[in-house]
Amino acid sequence: MALRRIFVANRGEIALRIGRAARELGIETVQAVSAADREMLPARLADAVVEVGPAHAGKSYLDKAAMLRAAIESGCDAVHPGYGFLAENADFAAMVEAAGLTFIGPSPETIRQMGDKATARAIAAKAGVPTVPGSEGRVEGLDEARAAASAIGFPVMIKAAAGGGGRGIRVAQGPDDLDALIPQAAAEAKAAFGDGGLYLERFVGRARHVEVQVLGDGREAIHLYERECSLQRRRQKVWEEAPAACLPADAREALCTSAVWLAKAVGYRGAGTLEYLYDSETGEFFFIEMNTRIQVEHPVTEMITGIDLVREMIRIAGGEPLRLGQADIRPRGHAIEVRINAEDPANGFRPAPGTIGALSLPGGPGVRVDTMLYPGYAVPPFYDSLLAKLVVHDETREAALARLGRALRECAVEGLPTTLALHRALLADPAVRAGDTHTRWLEAWLDAHPLDT
Amino acid sequence: MALRRIFVANRGEIALRIGRAARELGIETVQAVSAADREMLPARLADAVVEVGPAHAGKSYLDKAAMLRAAIESGCDAVHPGYGFLAENADFAAMVEAAGLTFIGPSPETIRQMGDKATARAIAAKAGVPTVPGSEGRVEGLDEARAAASAIGFPVMIKAAAGGGGRGIRVAQGPDDLDALIPQAAAEAKAAFGDGGLYLERFVGRARHVEVQVLGDGREAIHLYERECSLQRRRQKVWEEAPAACLPADAREALCTSAVWLAKAVGYRGAGTLEYLYDSETGEFFFIEMNTRIQVEHPVTEMITGIDLVREMIRIAGGEPLRLGQADIRPRGHAIEVRINAEDPANGFRPAPGTIGALSLPGGPGVRVDTMLYPGYAVPPFYDSLLAKLVVHDETREAALARLGRALRECAVEGLPTTLALHRALLADPAVRAGDTHTRWLEAWLDAHPLDT
Repeated sequence: MALRRIFVANRGEIALRIGRAARELGIETVQAVSAADREMLPARLADAVVEVGPAHAGKSYLDKAAMLRAAIESGCDAVHPGYGFLAENADFAAMVEAAGLTFIGPSPETIRQMGDKATARAIAAKAGVPTVPGSEGRVEGLDEARAAASAIGFPVMIKAAAGGGGRGIRVAQGPDDLDALIPQAAAEAKAAFGDGGLYLERFVGRARHVEVQVLGDGREAIHLYERECSLQRRRQKVWEEAPAACLPADAREALCTSAVWLAKAVGYRGAGTLEYLYDSETGEFFFIEMNTRIQVEHPVTEMITGIDLVREMIRIAGGEPLRLGQADIRPRGHAIEVRINAEDPANGFRPAPGTIGALSLPGGPGVRVDTMLYPGYAVPPFYDSLLAKLVVHDETREAALARLGRALRECAVEGLPTTLALHRALLADPAVRAGDTHTRWLEAWLDAHPLDT
Repeated sequence: MALRRIFVANRGEIALRIGRAARELGIETVQAVSAADREMLPARLADAVVEVGPAHAGKSYLDKAAMLRAAIESGCDAVHPGYGFLAENADFAAMVEAAGLTFIGPSPETIRQMGDKATARAIAAKAGVPTVPGSEGRVEGLDEARAAASAIGFPVMIKAAAGGGGRGIRVAQGPDDLDALIPQAAAEAKAAFGDGGLYLERFVGRARHVEVQVLGDGREAIHLYERECSLQRRRQKVWEEAPAACLPADAREALCTSAVWLAKAVGYRGAGTLEYLYDSETGEFFFIEMNTRIQVEHPVTEMITGIDLVREMIRIAGGEPLRLGQADIRPRGHAIEVRINAEDPANGFRPAPGTIGALSLPGGPGVRVDTMLYPGYAVPPFYDSLLAKLVVHDETREAALARLGRALRECAVEGLPTTLALHRALLADPAVRAGDTHTRWLEAWLDAHPLDT
């Protein structure tokens, strides 16, 4: 039951990425577009294009019924959700399956389990994966929160069980803070996610963000090593690397092995990522959550392993067993990805859509660019600001940094402000060069280093 | 004595390639340009630009004195010759060294030895490298040619000792042919190369062109495995792969080892390539010649090994010992390069300069493009027709072919005819897909398959 025709239920660079993988596998693609996206590059390269709704995410890329109807009517036998939009929507995955189509991702049940952060945490702990010391599932009310926090030790983070992306997180420095913060956080979680459930976790101060890529076919699972994504702004990653420079070999082995335990415990199918906090001072790592989809930063893993993750997802969804054993994954060198966004770093990173003028993209050895840009393309104002991913690969981290500098020098995107200036400034910073950062480093650095566009 | 500032004595994509390597090493570049090349991309990206002469190769890129003077006056401590032009000119290399600058390549003596094909053959034979059965060095006059040909066996090739690129080659089917062909070939060699010397070699019918990449520092030498370049038109390569699909593992080992013997025998310094004929029916391989420079098709080797050959050349020229041992070279996957030339395949491959209009270059996983093109660039009519090298890398040859198809589909160069249509047609051919070709295959195929642009 190999797939014949995939509905690409996403836009921008990830839609292009899916189209490329499908074409290399000899599978046709039908590209979903909103009215604002008719001219985007993935639509030009797809075998067919279906307009699913107006220039409004809720009425197009987020409209489950409209997307499924378009997939069925265009003769597709599978749906690739990309990342964002409906990628981690268990209801959508279930609707796709109920209609007899293949959802390219894990089962609705896995998406649901991992989408509830407290459930995910409990499953991880049961599988032997270290989790941040925290409450056993949800805390109901202030008294339970007080007891849990006292067992965990302060400072503690208060998190929304249904949350994600860092929204609704508060830090209590001591017991007195809980009185005000718990009701606040519950109200905010209820408003944001329709679910006021909370849980508590130890606050890890100078944590690194390290995540492990896994692939599973529902029975077997392997890891493809880790990425470090500690450079974040408002919990959005801006720069990603593989491998994690901070990780000693024994910690890497323990971390990656634990990810496979969890993937096997849930019978994971497709490509997924387990996110961890890593404390480079103590060497401890703690599972935070699992993303049940392909991630923006997957190319750094592809560069070091030589494995095409999107093709593997599609193969597995088509019913093939996992083609690779753990011994087939032999990482080589170091890769860095920087996200080029349509944002103005000199103006509080305000999103800045516009029309692309002259465009110079870097090339040559060890450089990969994933982008839907072309000269004259009007970047619509309705969606996220990611324009391009510039990825470099070289023998060592030091060489990769030099290659990134060379590639950034060749790169010019005219017509709108971008985050290129941010990446050039970061590359010159001694802490970044030394790999000596943590998840709160970038925001402090930005306060101290105003950027020109 | 690490290098500080390199004079790039070449143009087009290889000038850009050298500039990229130098920048990654933190070395400045000064770009030589003719009056026709002021606007080319490598000039825009260099630290400085020097106009060395008019839009005429003999008075610019081939003018040894003008190039050396420009290198000295612009404060350079080294010269990179690229390929073509002065790259294998022993006199130029000697002039550069006499002026106290570093020539990024082997010694003038090595260039001279390998530049004389009969001498190269004799050195190879002495080093234990199999050579095509042929004359012991030059044949002087018709009687010596008759005796040598009879010992070798017909058909024999008559080649110019000072030649290269296939010029002046004739095939004698029997003794009677020699009477007319020997004087003709001598006269033509004299006119073309200023040297009427000839040598004879056995004519290998369905030969593959297989070549081995070597790196040496004057003492140690290693190989970086082989490339196959059997798809040629008028002895110009049009499509190159690594590894050679036709080669069994034991033949690969013997071939690559023999290349290291020769590199060590001449104390080779820098990057070089030994070209062989490989007879896939008998499994025999024969050394033909050594190219003492970087080659157009070097990226396929870089893709499978992860080693940047141009950086290694520069490091070695700067006095560093060879950084890599043979065990450090671990090839992975399969790479294919296709040359996109400004030629009209529908019109006898007539060179077709012009101004680049819209330009779409492929990206994403496993795709590398080396090109000096940008929209609006006026391709000058004075130089060779290479516009871009499209290189793909994937796990297997079959996957690389699929990736090449995907990349070719994304690729569009408007404003002038190119050889893109040729590559699309070749990719669809069963013999190419099976890797079942030889050095005379493409010309016969072209006769049978007229192409539209």
